[in-house]
Amino acid sequence: MSTKKQDWKIINTERSIDLKLFKAHFTHFQNPRNQKVERMIILEGGHSANVVAVTPEKNLLFVRQFRVGIQEETLELPGGIIDPGESADKAVRRELEEETGYQAREWVTLGKVASNPVFMDGYIHHFAALDITPTGTLRLDDGEAIVPEILSIADTKKMLKEGLFQHPHTISALVLFFSKLGDRFPDTGPLID
Amino acid sequence: MSTKKQDWKIINTERSIDLKLFKAHFTHFQNPRNQKVERMIILEGGHSANVVAVTPEKNLLFVRQFRVGIQEETLELPGGIIDPGESADKAVRRELEEETGYQAREWVTLGKVASNPVFMDGYIHHFAALDITPTGTLRLDDGEAIVPEILSIADTKKMLKEGLFQHPHTISALVLFFSKLGDRFPDTGPLID
Repeated sequence: MSTKKQDWKIINTERSIDLKLFKAHFTHFQNPRNQKVERMIILEGGHSANVVAVTPEKNLLFVRQFRVGIQEETLELPGGIIDPGESADKAVRRELEEETGYQAREWVTLGKVASNPVFMDGYIHHFAALDITPTGTLRLDDGEAIVPEILSIADTKKMLKEGLFQHPHTISALVLFFSKLGDRFPDTGPLID
Repeated sequence: MSTKKQDWKIINTERSIDLKLFKAHFTHFQNPRNQKVERMIILEGGHSANVVAVTPEKNLLFVRQFRVGIQEETLELPGGIIDPGESADKAVRRELEEETGYQAREWVTLGKVASNPVFMDGYIHHFAALDITPTGTLRLDDGEAIVPEILSIADTKKMLKEGLFQHPHTISALVLFFSKLGDRFPDTGPLID
């Protein structure tokens, strides 16, 4: 049984619906397993970027905010949507400064993960920002109310292990951060034994 | 500055749009920071469940499939959408059997994470299934073409650390699995030092 791209034929693509945060359209795919055509919803263009930002004292910078999806407050990494024509590198620097007022001396690319491969065509790009310094004031969008918050690496690992972060893109960024840069913080113990 | 739920007033909720996989509606929220009213998109009702399923030989069960969102093949944990009125416990047992033909002798609840708190109201419920045995045949939906695949725990950790899993809900489930049940697999080394 094939799951390969070339075997899934696109039969038709419907007109896009504007949902403000993204556009949505139905594409009709023919399943190579049974030749049946299924109408699948796809949300277009939601590329985003977020950042594990580290202070000179080796603490991590989070943002506390109200999220309308779950109508609850969350603690997340800074980040946001990449503007049309903007690079992920540029977007993440802009978002860090807008949401927290911090800039960084060193940037590391951690990788990217599909935002949700089931129905979104976009990716979340993960970065680390090292040796951050406060340089300005927050410039929030009209729909944002964000409070920056500093956590120790030990507390971050504890929250991650207890499943307390409520944004999957914060979790995937932290896993890559500890995987790729964890050896810079040897005193904090393993994320997971 | 407040990010609390009670301070974000709902001014209006528009009629839902049917997107098949979920319904979408715009809700108009008043931001307590600046009193401005923003029209926010919310995708309704997308609760889902997935499972880290462990064979008697202590290997893990994944599913390989084509995902229309990114139009690529992914390797993910088994799982799917919880039907209306169905419990997460029941849904995850059904999805495991439908997608892989396996049942389990022991189930452990790992926790839940918001699917995407920015614009989805649903949660992904994470489970572990221990001592799984093949008991039947796959019963796939018309839009699915799924191939089960067994990975060692060492290979799973390697893929996780290298950022190769392309579904955020697979990553969050594996983090909770290794955090809560990792001591049952002491020979495989830490997920992240």
